[in-house]
Amino acid sequence: MNNYKLTIQYDGGRYKGWQRLGDGDNTIQGKIENVLTELAGEKIEIIGSGRTDAGVHAFAQIANFKMRKHATEDEVMQYLNRYLPNDISVVDVTFVHDRFHARYNAKDKTYLYKIWNEPYTHPFMRKYSMHVEEKLDIEKMRKASQHFLGKHDFTSYSNAKSKKKSMVREIYSLEIKKNAGFIEIKVRGNGFLYNMVRKIVGTLIEVGLGEKDATAIPSILESKERIQTGRMADAEGLYLEKVGF
Amino acid sequence: MNNYKLTIQYDGGRYKGWQRLGDGDNTIQGKIENVLTELAGEKIEIIGSGRTDAGVHAFAQIANFKMRKHATEDEVMQYLNRYLPNDISVVDVTFVHDRFHARYNAKDKTYLYKIWNEPYTHPFMRKYSMHVEEKLDIEKMRKASQHFLGKHDFTSYSNAKSKKKSMVREIYSLEIKKNAGFIEIKVRGNGFLYNMVRKIVGTLIEVGLGEKDATAIPSILESKERIQTGRMADAEGLYLEKVGF
Repeated sequence: MNNYKLTIQYDGGRYKGWQRLGDGDNTIQGKIENVLTELAGEKIEIIGSGRTDAGVHAFAQIANFKMRKHATEDEVMQYLNRYLPNDISVVDVTFVHDRFHARYNAKDKTYLYKIWNEPYTHPFMRKYSMHVEEKLDIEKMRKASQHFLGKHDFTSYSNAKSKKKSMVREIYSLEIKKNAGFIEIKVRGNGFLYNMVRKIVGTLIEVGLGEKDATAIPSILESKERIQTGRMADAEGLYLEKVGF
Repeated sequence: MNNYKLTIQYDGGRYKGWQRLGDGDNTIQGKIENVLTELAGEKIEIIGSGRTDAGVHAFAQIANFKMRKHATEDEVMQYLNRYLPNDISVVDVTFVHDRFHARYNAKDKTYLYKIWNEPYTHPFMRKYSMHVEEKLDIEKMRKASQHFLGKHDFTSYSNAKSKKKSMVREIYSLEIKKNAGFIEIKVRGNGFLYNMVRKIVGTLIEVGLGEKDATAIPSILESKERIQTGRMADAEGLYLEKVGF
């Protein structure tokens, strides 16, 4: 059996997210597995580096799968791109060693969040960014972002359902920069809980609008109560940018 | 009466083009006129620098209109952006002198055409570029593009209906460059006939694929028969980038 590593780009706009929910469902994983099952002539399951929520995009999601049938990297890539819908692209296929596991081996993830911060909409990016009409104070946002760095229990910054698993995650970096009319927030960490990036960005937006003071963040984190957090940023501004191994 | 100049950005994807065709029709001009008529309390007609075809986009279409009601530039801009659909944005409103006419005073126009030239689709740009899977020979395209420069009768490179008007247009520059996986074609001229840019780009694609020899272009131009031209590039890759006055 060969083990294949896939690098996948997708517009998450019309999907229920990465994770397969049932047969023939509208998920990225489901779409890819259906095509690979056709190619392989056996039921194929792919392992993603992690889930992305409904509506969230990816520049480079990583996944792996094993199949008995022999096919070259190019053959797999061509087959996938021929039969996948055109909002999902496989941009790379590589043979990897047998023990490579896209979820277990993922060391860190980088997410990018795009905010369009002008009074008018951006016709071409309206589905690929969140529109905030009022001017955001980027310096306030930068200061606030410092509170998220390092190891924290992010219970209050997630909507994760399981209460058994650890909610501790480490954020290595959080950069905020202006790019023409956009504000781009890039966050890298060892892992992210369900909705965590969107809740962090939501708080940064509240701070940037002057609705919340950055000094409130440490106590919100300590409270471990998600009712303490405010706004959650829209899914369409979020991209899984990179997975580190 | 004040004369207002508008700078308009739009995703032409779901419209029948710039030009109003009837009442409540699905055109950019129609959408803007309907909103301005509400604001003005009188029927408003706007004059565009020129038409864009169905599906064609604009970074900076220019238009002007006159109205009796007094409103500041900001008021007009805010009103338009509040009531226009979010794939049309007004990015600037300026008072101009009474005789400014967006069509008569337009001296030149620059169009940009984006080709995505990779074997897989671009999930985020699939509606904003034309996908050509086979590698294009950009050097051949550059050489071919020279034949379009200068003054020519472009009858064979247009689908314009009128046979009375002059089909002579002058192309000042035509640049082709690579930008990551994209090939971007920028063409500036004193004016463009219906479908002219798309037919020129279609020919450049044929040349880039080795389907047509560049030396055929002069005789196609001279023939003045549109049956001589081949492929027309898709609307979704085309943007009206700039109008010079």
